Amino acid sequence: MRLEVDIDAQCGLARTGKVATARGSFEVPCFMPVGTRGSIRALGTHQLEELSSPGGVRAEVMLCNTYHLMLRPGAGVVESLGGLHAFTGFGGHMLTDSGGYQVFSLDPEVTDRGAEFRSTYDGSRHLLTPESAVRTQEMLGADMQMVLDVCAPLPSPRPLLVEAVERTALWARRAREAHERTADQALLGIVQGGTDAELRRRSAGWTVELDFDGYAIGGLSVGEPRSEMLPALEAALEVLPESQPRYLMGVGDPISIVEAVARGVDMFDCVLPTRLARHGTLLTDRGRLNIKRAEFASSEEPVDPGCGCATCSRYSRGYLRHLMRVREPAGAILCTIHNLTWMFALVEATRSAIRDGSLDALRRRVAEAHGDGFDGE
Amino acid sequence: MRLEVDIDAQCGLARTGKVATARGSFEVPCFMPVGTRGSIRALGTHQLEELSSPGGVRAEVMLCNTYHLMLRPGAGVVESLGGLHAFTGFGGHMLTDSGGYQVFSLDPEVTDRGAEFRSTYDGSRHLLTPESAVRTQEMLGADMQMVLDVCAPLPSPRPLLVEAVERTALWARRAREAHERTADQALLGIVQGGTDAELRRRSAGWTVELDFDGYAIGGLSVGEPRSEMLPALEAALEVLPESQPRYLMGVGDPISIVEAVARGVDMFDCVLPTRLARHGTLLTDRGRLNIKRAEFASSEEPVDPGCGCATCSRYSRGYLRHLMRVREPAGAILCTIHNLTWMFALVEATRSAIRDGSLDALRRRVAEAHGDGFDGE
Repeated sequence: MRLEVDIDAQCGLARTGKVATARGSFEVPCFMPVGTRGSIRALGTHQLEELSSPGGVRAEVMLCNTYHLMLRPGAGVVESLGGLHAFTGFGGHMLTDSGGYQVFSLDPEVTDRGAEFRSTYDGSRHLLTPESAVRTQEMLGADMQMVLDVCAPLPSPRPLLVEAVERTALWARRAREAHERTADQALLGIVQGGTDAELRRRSAGWTVELDFDGYAIGGLSVGEPRSEMLPALEAALEVLPESQPRYLMGVGDPISIVEAVARGVDMFDCVLPTRLARHGTLLTDRGRLNIKRAEFASSEEPVDPGCGCATCSRYSRGYLRHLMRVREPAGAILCTIHNLTWMFALVEATRSAIRDGSLDALRRRVAEAHGDGFDGE
Repeated sequence: MRLEVDIDAQCGLARTGKVATARGSFEVPCFMPVGTRGSIRALGTHQLEELSSPGGVRAEVMLCNTYHLMLRPGAGVVESLGGLHAFTGFGGHMLTDSGGYQVFSLDPEVTDRGAEFRSTYDGSRHLLTPESAVRTQEMLGADMQMVLDVCAPLPSPRPLLVEAVERTALWARRAREAHERTADQALLGIVQGGTDAELRRRSAGWTVELDFDGYAIGGLSVGEPRSEMLPALEAALEVLPESQPRYLMGVGDPISIVEAVARGVDMFDCVLPTRLARHGTLLTDRGRLNIKRAEFASSEEPVDPGCGCATCSRYSRGYLRHLMRVREPAGAILCTIHNLTWMFALVEATRSAIRDGSLDALRRRVAEAHGDGFDGE
């Protein structure tokens, strides 16, 4: 099913609007929380659905990882339980990745045919191909699925980047042909090419030629500085059709989000807000706050006085610090509630700024607050 | 502050009604979830408050452990943050234990003066006395606090039980005298005596002589069979005043709860429902259900079709099994939601049965469902 962005407002290259799907629609720009194994770490699905920014931005799309779900409980089990929506109980939209990103991190044996890897659960051998990735994701039944791509580490020598781009294109064509569940599921192509602008344009061109339902930019924010990431992103975006959603994979730090939105990106996912939360690092309008610091032991203040989340509405920094220090599960729960709500508020701010034409001011504010290192307040 | 039970209905020795406090009132029989370190494992306080049985029985009282809180973050920190209610954000009633139960499990050096122990957090040495337990609990600021008692393991030779009862009585008097925060805090005495009915009566008599605000029965359900526990409980209850609340400490298995209610007990606490939940064992009207069993892998059914909790309303056994198998935190969260809600439903059933005069039928139903071993469905 082809996805189109029904654009409500634009500010430079940035845009806000709705993406229609077989299930309904979701607004962009959007941040998609990651439910790796079919669940956000530290939140039940119904608890995720309760999170909302002050202006009502919620988790309209949740991402799940095919790699994990195909191994545990298995795509067949998820399918027999009615697919990912019924399985997780999530009432919104879902997106699955292809499994490739995790598989490539396991140093698999890669041929044109696919990638052979050993399961991290039990050491069993598996072959992931462009066709099997499509089929597995059809069984999982998300609203959007991703092609299997080749994500080169950065920095990589150019020949390796070229090979990744070429194999990604080859696999994309096979995925496009293998995709059968077209009535209610969108298949998104992925642009690779590292930080090489020319390769990014070439990869984007090949991907667009295959006429996907939407487009993603992969292989960025894998260690390279933002000053190299953004030009590569721009090169890819130049080639992608304006009318369809653009998804920047795995990028979730606040500065990158607003900078990518300013360049025309619509969709984001990242484990960062939930992972930071589990370590007691909280996202605030003033920057990151490490709740475990001794200075917060007797603080009656909420994490972020301007935040209306369940955590900031009720709990003090002192209580949260205590929970994190003694490793009470509620610590991770309450910090996750805050960080995800804060991400939704950031998304809300980008949408408002696009409507108001004030995106540059937002970019400056976010850069000031989040440009420095960790732990600062 | 003296606690009285305003009895609404009776069925034999069982009673249901309200206990008035400085903060308001709570209904009995009641089950008090345990927030060891100021938090229910796997639930934020606001999430605990959302739990409700079909008929509206909720967590009206939460228990916290003085032992843990006096060491982390320290009673002074809790006091500086406004006491336990403000600290935890809990809107209901709170009860603290004396810390003695945990301290006695650490093999402390016990003299008439008190118990000297090493902190499990950092090995530091501390002395817990009847007076310091009262003072610490005044700082923590719960609505109800417990005297420091001596809990003998079972089985114990009679001289050891006698010594425990005598020292408990000596310490109870000192606690009564030390208690200053009498305007808004109740101090409950504790009956000891192991499974020896005569000692239980003697201990109860000595405790009642000191005219406490309420009474607890301690040192039961510590390994002895229920057939020995119940007569000891009865012996203590015979001596305790009918007009005041009776609290059976640390007992939370369904059969013991209904049997103790039938004998006139009003209040219960136990980590069992939350601990079982973290291991994937779910309480149901048909008995315990081990969600990790292979047979549930593809089950679309809820845990307990008759249960209206957030978990049973939305999630399948197959999904819960998956979450527990891959150790996703949401597994413990969703199982905890179910088990606590089920406990509130059990409490609701006891109250209804007392009003209807059908408590014997409830006792038979619970005995049938929960009389067998683990894991069965």
